[in-house]
Amino acid sequence: MTKLKMGVIGGGIDSFIGSVHRMAAAMDGHIELVCGALSSTPERSRKSGEQLGLPPERIYGDYRKMIEKESQLPEEERMDIVSITTPNYMHYQPARMALDYGFHVICDKPMTMTLEEALDLENHVGSTGLEFALTHNYTGYPMVKQAKHMVRTGELGKIRKIAVEYLQGWLNTKVEDMGNKQANWRADPKRSGKVLAMGDIGTHAENLAEYITGLKIKSLCADLTSHVEGRILDDDGSMLIRYEGGATGTLLASQIATGEENNLKINIYGDKGGLEWEQVSPNTLIVKWANKPTEILRTATQFAGFGKASQLASRLPAGHPEGFIEAFANIYKNFALTILSRKEGKDPDPEWLDFPNVHDGVRGMAFLETVIESSQSNQKWIWMKS
Amino acid sequence: MTKLKMGVIGGGIDSFIGSVHRMAAAMDGHIELVCGALSSTPERSRKSGEQLGLPPERIYGDYRKMIEKESQLPEEERMDIVSITTPNYMHYQPARMALDYGFHVICDKPMTMTLEEALDLENHVGSTGLEFALTHNYTGYPMVKQAKHMVRTGELGKIRKIAVEYLQGWLNTKVEDMGNKQANWRADPKRSGKVLAMGDIGTHAENLAEYITGLKIKSLCADLTSHVEGRILDDDGSMLIRYEGGATGTLLASQIATGEENNLKINIYGDKGGLEWEQVSPNTLIVKWANKPTEILRTATQFAGFGKASQLASRLPAGHPEGFIEAFANIYKNFALTILSRKEGKDPDPEWLDFPNVHDGVRGMAFLETVIESSQSNQKWIWMKS
Amino acid sequence: MTKLKMGVIGGGIDSFIGSVHRMAAAMDGHIELVCGALSSTPERSRKSGEQLGLPPERIYGDYRKMIEKESQLPEEERMDIVSITTPNYMHYQPARMALDYGFHVICDKPMTMTLEEALDLENHVGSTGLEFALTHNYTGYPMVKQAKHMVRTGELGKIRKIAVEYLQGWLNTKVEDMGNKQANWRADPKRSGKVLAMGDIGTHAENLAEYITGLKIKSLCADLTSHVEGRILDDDGSMLIRYEGGATGTLLASQIATGEENNLKINIYGDKGGLEWEQVSPNTLIVKWANKPTEILRTATQFAGFGKASQLASRLPAGHPEGFIEAFANIYKNFALTILSRKEGKDPDPEWLDFPNVHDGVRGMAFLETVIESSQSNQKWIWMKS
Amino acid sequence: MTKLKMGVIGGGIDSFIGSVHRMAAAMDGHIELVCGALSSTPERSRKSGEQLGLPPERIYGDYRKMIEKESQLPEEERMDIVSITTPNYMHYQPARMALDYGFHVICDKPMTMTLEEALDLENHVGSTGLEFALTHNYTGYPMVKQAKHMVRTGELGKIRKIAVEYLQGWLNTKVEDMGNKQANWRADPKRSGKVLAMGDIGTHAENLAEYITGLKIKSLCADLTSHVEGRILDDDGSMLIRYEGGATGTLLASQIATGEENNLKINIYGDKGGLEWEQVSPNTLIVKWANKPTEILRTATQFAGFGKASQLASRLPAGHPEGFIEAFANIYKNFALTILSRKEGKDPDPEWLDFPNVHDGVRGMAFLETVIESSQSNQKWIWMKS
Repeated sequence: MTKLKMGVIGGGIDSFIGSVHRMAAAMDGHIELVCGALSSTPERSRKSGEQLGLPPERIYGDYRKMIEKESQLPEEERMDIVSITTPNYMHYQPARMALDYGFHVICDKPMTMTLEEALDLENHVGSTGLEFALTHNYTGYPMVKQAKHMVRTGELGKIRKIAVEYLQGWLNTKVEDMGNKQANWRADPKRSGKVLAMGDIGTHAENLAEYITGLKIKSLCADLTSHVEGRILDDDGSMLIRYEGGATGTLLASQIATGEENNLKINIYGDKGGLEWEQVSPNTLIVKWANKPTEILRTATQFAGFGKASQLASRLPAGHPEGFIEAFANIYKNFALTILSRKEGKDPDPEWLDFPNVHDGVRGMAFLETVIESSQSNQKWIWMKS
Repeated sequence: MTKLKMGVIGGGIDSFIGSVHRMAAAMDGHIELVCGALSSTPERSRKSGEQLGLPPERIYGDYRKMIEKESQLPEEERMDIVSITTPNYMHYQPARMALDYGFHVICDKPMTMTLEEALDLENHVGSTGLEFALTHNYTGYPMVKQAKHMVRTGELGKIRKIAVEYLQGWLNTKVEDMGNKQANWRADPKRSGKVLAMGDIGTHAENLAEYITGLKIKSLCADLTSHVEGRILDDDGSMLIRYEGGATGTLLASQIATGEENNLKINIYGDKGGLEWEQVSPNTLIVKWANKPTEILRTATQFAGFGKASQLASRLPAGHPEGFIEAFANIYKNFALTILSRKEGKDPDPEWLDFPNVHDGVRGMAFLETVIESSQSNQKWIWMKS
Repeated sequence: MTKLKMGVIGGGIDSFIGSVHRMAAAMDGHIELVCGALSSTPERSRKSGEQLGLPPERIYGDYRKMIEKESQLPEEERMDIVSITTPNYMHYQPARMALDYGFHVICDKPMTMTLEEALDLENHVGSTGLEFALTHNYTGYPMVKQAKHMVRTGELGKIRKIAVEYLQGWLNTKVEDMGNKQANWRADPKRSGKVLAMGDIGTHAENLAEYITGLKIKSLCADLTSHVEGRILDDDGSMLIRYEGGATGTLLASQIATGEENNLKINIYGDKGGLEWEQVSPNTLIVKWANKPTEILRTATQFAGFGKASQLASRLPAGHPEGFIEAFANIYKNFALTILSRKEGKDPDPEWLDFPNVHDGVRGMAFLETVIESSQSNQKWIWMKS
Repeated sequence: MTKLKMGVIGGGIDSFIGSVHRMAAAMDGHIELVCGALSSTPERSRKSGEQLGLPPERIYGDYRKMIEKESQLPEEERMDIVSITTPNYMHYQPARMALDYGFHVICDKPMTMTLEEALDLENHVGSTGLEFALTHNYTGYPMVKQAKHMVRTGELGKIRKIAVEYLQGWLNTKVEDMGNKQANWRADPKRSGKVLAMGDIGTHAENLAEYITGLKIKSLCADLTSHVEGRILDDDGSMLIRYEGGATGTLLASQIATGEENNLKINIYGDKGGLEWEQVSPNTLIVKWANKPTEILRTATQFAGFGKASQLASRLPAGHPEGFIEAFANIYKNFALTILSRKEGKDPDPEWLDFPNVHDGVRGMAFLETVIESSQSNQKWIWMKS
């Protein structure tokens, strides 16, 4: 079995998301880590690379060097894919350059700092024919895929109502000034962009709702707030949403919801049934019906009505909890299988294409710019940009 | 022990809420049922009264007769209080007349059909000095009272965010045309008023949020929808809310949330802690903290930090579930104890005054009129009427 | 509508279970309280009776007087039923005397102090033709009745395994010596009998298992322990059970399970399905299947497969929690409806006969004597007495 | 960073537990797979090895060859550890041989077919000084470690009661005859040993109880059953347990609990507090107290009172579910870190020694032989072998 070779940008010592990406990439045996530009300073990059057991000559001082040098290595040796796990402001340029040098890209979200950058990346992905994955990892959970399946097959009927919320409490005080690195860059407009909570977690909520239901946000009415004194960007936001086709909904994203850990939750109601999924209990999907008892669907059960995508996304028998890293790994797995099959000149299995891509990234940036406009406007409804 | 004598308006055979009122009134032994005008036709009223074991001479053909005749009975014999459990359009006039004849009133919600009527009732209650209770029964639950206690004592810190929702699924199809009596009058503007879901359950959500937090809605931005074809009034609604003092929030009320039974839920976040309460598990209050583990508070436990109101609202040791009727009975109990102590010329215990009253009714109608205006407006924020 | 007249033995001021019986009896309007011998001293009895609003002449100084005097009143005036809510040692004689004087009896559990007394009562109930109810109240919950229904109709297949447990923590320290009245008599062999926890709560567990499954315990192997120093009787016990027909099981009853409130829980597994019910969430019955998703059955839903008994046992629409008092009231309601219909010379509806009776009481005492023998024996299996 | 080189015995295509071991070993970057004898036939072994990307010369036809050949490779090249994931009857000999050739061993459970074999392995581990890990993986969960910590520090007080159960439903019918490979060998005494359910899952329950509480089983009274017709070994078992120091308990292990997935659950009660943990919600530990509200402890929170072991066992921030593979990986991680530090001539951090070892394996086999004797005996209590 051939493995894809991966280079990483970001993810040095003490990075949270960098180690998640590495564990996710390693899980299924399709990808091996071969090189990295792991930190913003060459020294830290070197230390981080050594800790990961990378050969010294493939630990690079910055991403530009990595992309250039790797592109000069023989094809069977050089990296195939670039994984970008830096703060938001360092997504666009590395991604753009990697694409320009012919590397496939997997990038953290939100994809860029502006919609304009996002559209530019979309163009480049289209013109190069390379693969681009965006780690909206929550869509990697088996029961999220099952939810999508049940909407698509019409089991829930016409979708009428969507309530999604993503609540955290860790920015409850001004931790960005108290040495919390994760908070520090997220709260800084130069590194984070025009929004804090809405970009960091609100885009996950938006992506989840559109992924499961297949419905597009048509217009929205948002209220962003900074509850913590002195904070520049939003730490809490809510919005009313109208979807194409008539569904209505709400979306909440907050990082000042004291005591909440990482509470992403969605409720969807069709005219035949409703469903509920919570990220903290990711292997359970609750399905509610008008005329029969509520059902508890569970990861890895193979009863009638279970979709193929949810089954492919599971590695263990039912009752053996699959968690955050496993869901994250599902994005990497589908991305890798798609590239591997293209390398062999084959069309990938359509199920493998089930990973968030550059279009999701554009959608996320359009969502953020619409939310910002709405929050500053006295007009009730703002049309979703595109 | 003296008992209060109660006459009922509405609550005939097959009435849901009428039997709830009767069981609630009977539970604590402070109230006895003595007369009634139980239905819109004298014949049905008679049958219903017989079934309840009322003496034939005190089963009245309509509420006017009941109030007149009872007022002519000797004081020790005639009813003390009137309980009104009719559809919305039959609240105001019976309540007004009962007050005019000197009877205390306990009335179902929403209190009236218009804000104007509500203000008129408020004036009359004020000028007569009579007691008026409104059965926003969910505030009768011990753990709701404990939630209020924890906000008031400052345990949760400054309140920043309030998310309340009340979801049901029973109006998922056009059951008002299929012989469902409860749906039939609620969906009819002449009997229900200008709103359906928002009046039937949205006002409970509004009342719950203001009761627990003590914060008043300052302005709101609402979106009401009729998802079921041919339905005149709203069966689903959502809104953004700004509270006095800077808290932000959302309120959802839906009766087309397929598969939901009676899902009233509130999450409140202060800068020190958060809390979560769900009506389907009413004896549990979940309290989330920034710096220590989440706690599960339970009805009837008497640990440090438990308020007196929640303890008075409980009749059983912890672990013996107290339900909907018990919470409803707490409204009746406090209303009765207040009147009984006034009868004896004493000031009631301040805790007994803890029942929803005519001011809550005015607040509810102001809320509904604000929501209606907002839903029809292109302006984002509408100030709460008062 | 005629009401049954009830006299009570026990249940004075500060009694827990006495007030439960009164609220339960009052709930459905079939029973009115007319007299009582409420306490072990005439003075306390008088005070308690006054507080309940009983006429002075029908507040009796002891149960013997009550039964005698009431039997001399005209038939339309005297009590119909006697409710016994005293400590265990005061069940048998009052019950026996009430039967001798022609009164129906409803009695708290365990029914007697010995199996011999229980068999004597059974004989007397049989020979008098009077009704006798035993308040194994947990069988009054709608979802317990639904569980029984599902076993009886064969939906779960052949029953193989039954795990029942009843865990409380309130006897975790020697509270019987610290002024806790409820603990004081329960821990005293003279007033409680030969067992503490196994009698107080273990019999509920035994009754629940046999009620739902219809299977009889064939033999058992028990281990009773007193974990709290100085306590004479058991505060914790576990046993292995073999049921008739081949099912196996366990039963746990503990009052030293620190932090547990009133945790009665049962899991039953057949060859087609399994079910799970917990008293703290009494309106939910979880049903597990081999070949389809787990279902959540809920009180008051009327889907296909719901039994009549569970529907009759519910007073409210789904989602309006019905609690401990409501379940207790279901025992009273069926007991009352049975007597009322016999009074009218009619056979009661078979569903009304669904209340625990004197045979359950005999079964409970046989269970206790078997458990005691087993706990003292070195032999593994002891046959259930009968 | 040096990595340990791992060879695997078993775990070929379609093996469930083999792939779990590989993902677990890969997760933290301390171990790389270098060789394997993956199946009982050389042909299947070759195919499986190729699929895993192993070099052809290090795919061996059987475990004997692998151990011999690898031992002849230069030290810097040959495997360091052997991972054994074969059915039970193929644990002892490979483990013994690997130890004899100087390799560290990590082995699936139950460790051997007999207590005698287990004692022999224990001797060899002792005399060679090699490391031996047994994958009682459930002790790898962070909240299990936290539970152990709370018992050890005395927070729960003296332990009085332990109820542990492990329930599955997948052997509900005779699937061993219907092509289910996992069931087929487990139900066969030649490959599984003297027990089925009690060995497959009962030993996990026993290990979990002793791991958390630090208490040893003193004596037990067991009832094993085969509920499915024609099955030779137990598919269901229950026992009463007495622990050293006076705690009492029960242990249930069943594979005919229809509808249960993988329900391992433990409740422990001390005289100050109790705790509850369920494998299906592994990141939650519920702690119950006598005098304050129940607390919900969660993986990766770092509040006062959290132990170091639980923190080391977590890779993600709170609210990012860590699952079965992560817990499994914690066994591998500690095993690897211990060996790596010994390789460097250092004493391992005491926390790294926190993995189940050969003594746990002996304990498990002693438990099984005691259970078998008890189940066949008419004597109530059988002393735990050792």
